[in-house]
Amino acid sequence: MRRRRTGGRSARVRTQVLQSVGALLLEAGYDGLTVDAVAERAGVHRTTVYRRWRDVGHLLADVLDTASDDTWSPPDTGSLEDDLTALNQEVYEALTGGGPNLTTALIAAAFRSTQAATALSRFWEDRYARCAVVATRAADRGELPGPADSRALLVAATAPLYHELLLLRAVSDPTLPHRAARAAAAAAGAGVFSTPQ
Amino acid sequence: MRRRRTGGRSARVRTQVLQSVGALLLEAGYDGLTVDAVAERAGVHRTTVYRRWRDVGHLLADVLDTASDDTWSPPDTGSLEDDLTALNQEVYEALTGGGPNLTTALIAAAFRSTQAATALSRFWEDRYARCAVVATRAADRGELPGPADSRALLVAATAPLYHELLLLRAVSDPTLPHRAARAAAAAAGAGVFSTPQ
Repeated sequence: MRRRRTGGRSARVRTQVLQSVGALLLEAGYDGLTVDAVAERAGVHRTTVYRRWRDVGHLLADVLDTASDDTWSPPDTGSLEDDLTALNQEVYEALTGGGPNLTTALIAAAFRSTQAATALSRFWEDRYARCAVVATRAADRGELPGPADSRALLVAATAPLYHELLLLRAVSDPTLPHRAARAAAAAAGAGVFSTPQ
Repeated sequence: MRRRRTGGRSARVRTQVLQSVGALLLEAGYDGLTVDAVAERAGVHRTTVYRRWRDVGHLLADVLDTASDDTWSPPDTGSLEDDLTALNQEVYEALTGGGPNLTTALIAAAFRSTQAATALSRFWEDRYARCAVVATRAADRGELPGPADSRALLVAATAPLYHELLLLRAVSDPTLPHRAARAAAAAAGAGVFSTPQ
């Protein structure tokens, strides 16, 4: 559900509603997330929410689409390993940040809602697209044997964090972001992610 | 809920009940999984299931613990890259195998049940422990600069598969098992997973 920013009252309503979705998801999980509960918490009439979003799946999708609606760009540290470490540090903080955690809650919700799953993939693919420059810069600096598949490189760098923290529920290890970045950078340097020229 | 094999009727009941848990999870998801539904499908009195497993969390945990109760050992192909590729091929097939997929359903259930989450971590940690030999053999063959943290190496090799297939829900790519294995083997060869001697 992508829509133009409309400004004014409509934009305020959207902000209130989407904030309420996040708050309810954290407090009560997916099972506590209903259109009525969202409307009540946002102080908005329930028909407004039904008309504009229809159901919980569309509400979650809009939360995720809104998260892409920013000016985020990847760090530019001057080396591939440090760029990937800085990216991993962001992922690590999103997944381990003290207390209940919206990133984890949204990923869990994506196992319940196809709409949320599709929107989450869209969010990640947008991030990977923005990160293409990380691989280009590394190739330009001569850190790679040639052009690389930046998406594959980024997945290799970040996947161990999601795996450890979300699936294995391992004790968080502050050396993980750097180690996973080093591993992906070493593999990239060895040409594993090289694309045919 | 680890228990000794007891053989005879008790073992048959357990097998029937745990098969019913898997079948119901695939058919109706976590929401359709109740002790009563499991008992009915297994053709076992509900009090038997309540007495022995108590709730859905313990049932799921027992399914996962039973999955470790096998003689699985990692492939031994003669090279680190090929060992990791063969392992990844197993993961890939478990996550993409035609039709509804018990591995994915159990991972999804772990987002709903702490018991299932703990049992799933236990299952994976057991697999990592069995795979320690993969790193030892690679070091002995001189493929690594020295002893390596086999768990970190295995997570690096397998995590991109879970990330692509489970979280990103990407179109399955048959080159993924080998590419992720190559990346982890290259990083290991560069000493990224080396342990202090």
